[in-house]
Amino acid sequence: MLTIALVHYPVVNKNGQTIGSAVTNLDIHDIARAARTFGAGAYFVVTPYADQRHLVAEIIGHWREGYGASYNPARKDALSLVRVADSLDAAIKTIGDECGQRPFVVATSAKAGEPSVGYQELRQKIAAGQPTLLLFGTAHGLAREVIAMADAMLPPIYGAGDYNHLPVRSAAAIILDRLLGARRD
Amino acid sequence: MLTIALVHYPVVNKNGQTIGSAVTNLDIHDIARAARTFGAGAYFVVTPYADQRHLVAEIIGHWREGYGASYNPARKDALSLVRVADSLDAAIKTIGDECGQRPFVVATSAKAGEPSVGYQELRQKIAAGQPTLLLFGTAHGLAREVIAMADAMLPPIYGAGDYNHLPVRSAAAIILDRLLGARRD
Repeated sequence: MLTIALVHYPVVNKNGQTIGSAVTNLDIHDIARAARTFGAGAYFVVTPYADQRHLVAEIIGHWREGYGASYNPARKDALSLVRVADSLDAAIKTIGDECGQRPFVVATSAKAGEPSVGYQELRQKIAAGQPTLLLFGTAHGLAREVIAMADAMLPPIYGAGDYNHLPVRSAAAIILDRLLGARRD
Repeated sequence: MLTIALVHYPVVNKNGQTIGSAVTNLDIHDIARAARTFGAGAYFVVTPYADQRHLVAEIIGHWREGYGASYNPARKDALSLVRVADSLDAAIKTIGDECGQRPFVVATSAKAGEPSVGYQELRQKIAAGQPTLLLFGTAHGLAREVIAMADAMLPPIYGAGDYNHLPVRSAAAIILDRLLGARRD
């Protein structure tokens, strides 16, 4: 089973300083829809800020139980995957408790680092039943200590050149397609 | 060269009726960033409504020449690909004039139809130099007459089941990765 975590702290800003970012409605919806499309088991929105966790709860409440649920059942379906955690450790512990084993934790980054697992290799691990947690960073990406605590790191998404400014929601969609997408034509 | 068109008319609503949709800031930014990442040549925002075209011009003006250009040069770079057209025919004519030949027009859809070109096949055509225009629909997708006028249609993006409610910006990112993404690991 693949689980996604969108990390809002600790991440870095454009100057490389560690910050906490604000949750956006958009990242919740878009990544939940991609998670649902590709069969991810859960999508954790990770933030240490209580007001931000409250905001996420209000948004998903509207679409799961409020007017949104009857207006758009497909959105209810996607947002049912969203969960909230106050830290990455808490999310990892929850997944571990539910799966009976600590997940294999994989960081993503737009910067070329030292990737230690390839897309095909990770796809095969997941298909073989390895519980896996895929980490995405908001702002300018995951802080170094998050990448250091992960078990592995995926290579960046390379396009035509060196432009590496995909929105995190687009990067998540592409990576889910690479890891879980059905065989194409 | 691959060009993208995001169509706001004619598209269908949830009841299958033909409508014109509103341009969103988000679709402009996210698809421009994916287009830039994967080396698309241009990204046409297609709408017959003059006020909407004016809105697009204001948004891209801010990021190309206004404060946004100095604040975020990477965004300027992406939004420099955005162009506006009042109809799909006008966009096709412009591309034809610039390329010296009518582009190969390919529709996308979340609904299983009669796809006539596969991802690998189209990837090879583009790599071989075929000017190609990729059509994406807003709202609940391209109207039937748009699909009918296209030269070919790509298969839907299949995930784990039958959920087919990806945001158009996520679908565009995935399709660009499949058609233009660099070889992975």
